[in-house]
Amino acid sequence: MRRVIAGDWGTSRLRVTVIEDGVPVARHEGTGIAFLPGSAADALRAILDDLDLHQPPDAILLCGMVGSRNGWLEVPYTPCPVARELWRAQSGRTSLDGVPVTIAAGAAFDGDDLADVMRGEETQIFGALVIDPRLKSGRHRLVLPGTHSKWATVEDGRIVAIRTFVTGELFELIRSHSTLLRVGDAISRDDENAGFDAGLQRADAGLPLASLFTARVAQLRQARSSDWAAGYTSGLLIGSEVREALTLEATGECTLIGAPTLTRRYAQALARRDVASAQLDGDACGLAGLQLLDGRDDG
Amino acid sequence: MRRVIAGDWGTSRLRVTVIEDGVPVARHEGTGIAFLPGSAADALRAILDDLDLHQPPDAILLCGMVGSRNGWLEVPYTPCPVARELWRAQSGRTSLDGVPVTIAAGAAFDGDDLADVMRGEETQIFGALVIDPRLKSGRHRLVLPGTHSKWATVEDGRIVAIRTFVTGELFELIRSHSTLLRVGDAISRDDENAGFDAGLQRADAGLPLASLFTARVAQLRQARSSDWAAGYTSGLLIGSEVREALTLEATGECTLIGAPTLTRRYAQALARRDVASAQLDGDACGLAGLQLLDGRDDG
Repeated sequence: MRRVIAGDWGTSRLRVTVIEDGVPVARHEGTGIAFLPGSAADALRAILDDLDLHQPPDAILLCGMVGSRNGWLEVPYTPCPVARELWRAQSGRTSLDGVPVTIAAGAAFDGDDLADVMRGEETQIFGALVIDPRLKSGRHRLVLPGTHSKWATVEDGRIVAIRTFVTGELFELIRSHSTLLRVGDAISRDDENAGFDAGLQRADAGLPLASLFTARVAQLRQARSSDWAAGYTSGLLIGSEVREALTLEATGECTLIGAPTLTRRYAQALARRDVASAQLDGDACGLAGLQLLDGRDDG
Repeated sequence: MRRVIAGDWGTSRLRVTVIEDGVPVARHEGTGIAFLPGSAADALRAILDDLDLHQPPDAILLCGMVGSRNGWLEVPYTPCPVARELWRAQSGRTSLDGVPVTIAAGAAFDGDDLADVMRGEETQIFGALVIDPRLKSGRHRLVLPGTHSKWATVEDGRIVAIRTFVTGELFELIRSHSTLLRVGDAISRDDENAGFDAGLQRADAGLPLASLFTARVAQLRQARSSDWAAGYTSGLLIGSEVREALTLEATGECTLIGAPTLTRRYAQALARRDVASAQLDGDACGLAGLQLLDGRDDG
């Protein structure tokens, strides 16, 4: 039996999966790279102890900010176009108590005025190409919503363009720190969905900055709840992201990769602009991608 | 001699001016409405003690969030079109230890899909009409940049439309809490101006959400400083605000009201879009406006 530890180690969260002969058998959540009390190696060692594996794993496979300059080992970004074999070859190597550790390379797009990067999402993208092999040929638009939402163009299996929207981060900043949502009292879940629809609709005008204050005014003047305002803000930001991304490059179909609660909202925003979408689970894509890094030297 | 206390009392700051026969003779800064330890009356009483006036003032004139439901006395918003006399008539009255206190009404725009409000800026606007009487006739666009930037359309001396952009608040949220600006080290002041110019230029594309992440990538991939990134973010947000405001209503000239360091940046953004602008000092406009509330019952 071959047992590997696969970890998506981002800024704010670590998700570890134990995989035995390709089958996930256990999961564990840990602390993100930005919040570690000590070294990444110590944090991972503690998690391995918790998992009580009886014997060391055969390999540890990691992606995400663990490969940044503030992570465990800085692994350079692979410039677009990023082919799978090039990306595998450029992953970083280290070890933990004798166990080989592979850390995925990020991907960089330096091709035009809007340079861009990703770390972790490239692994999910290559995993998506394993899960849905139709994505391996032709030109496809893959969207990975989140704190930093990534739009990638994949052509014949290579990542050729990257565009980041800080939609999730903006929403969290507004929710946690702004006066826009703190006017009324929370009421109902339905209200939030109605707000989301209203925000999506407002996004059509292409005036996102002129439309944010509506979240506050709707509570002051139109008896909306703060739930509605939060939904409105989310709908406005997601709808505006989708609008801008499609302005940058039109597309008839997208593949959404992420948590189903979030990809459903993006699917709704895309449908509003007549773009069809398929949804793939982000964790499953991440695991498939990390396993591509296993036995790098063999292949 | 008639002595009045004029105060612009916002969410985060109170600016008090002592005015004797129309001439400002002393200034004092105090705590904003959102951060008071006790009542607004107690806070003002303490400031009057500090000012050591020997005898009570003849009147206290206030504007801003002091008139909101979380302020001293809730004064309703006057709906657009807001004429000066109507606005004066709708101001709130209370007293402090026998001294009459007048609190300015806010202004509300309920006229279309994008409802909007202001509290405090209406006072600066009516003050601007005193300082520059040419603004009293015809149609004018007045812009009051700040945490919540207000664009007002004034027609024959009445406020007929209001549009708020949360530009200053967004910038502060990003500067204080986001990962976008915290990559490199601060370098130079020049760098920030270069970043501002680059951000203004980027705003032309009308893709603000697609362009924010550049602040981070420019540090990671293009050796830009965090100062440059802060300037870029400011230029992108201000440029995008100006672009959206002019999309909503085209105009050939604007009057900017505010602190000179900020109105200069807006003037630059407007000039880039071939809109001429005049600049008025925000404090002077506020004082002129508050004095319109003095002796309300006489007029």
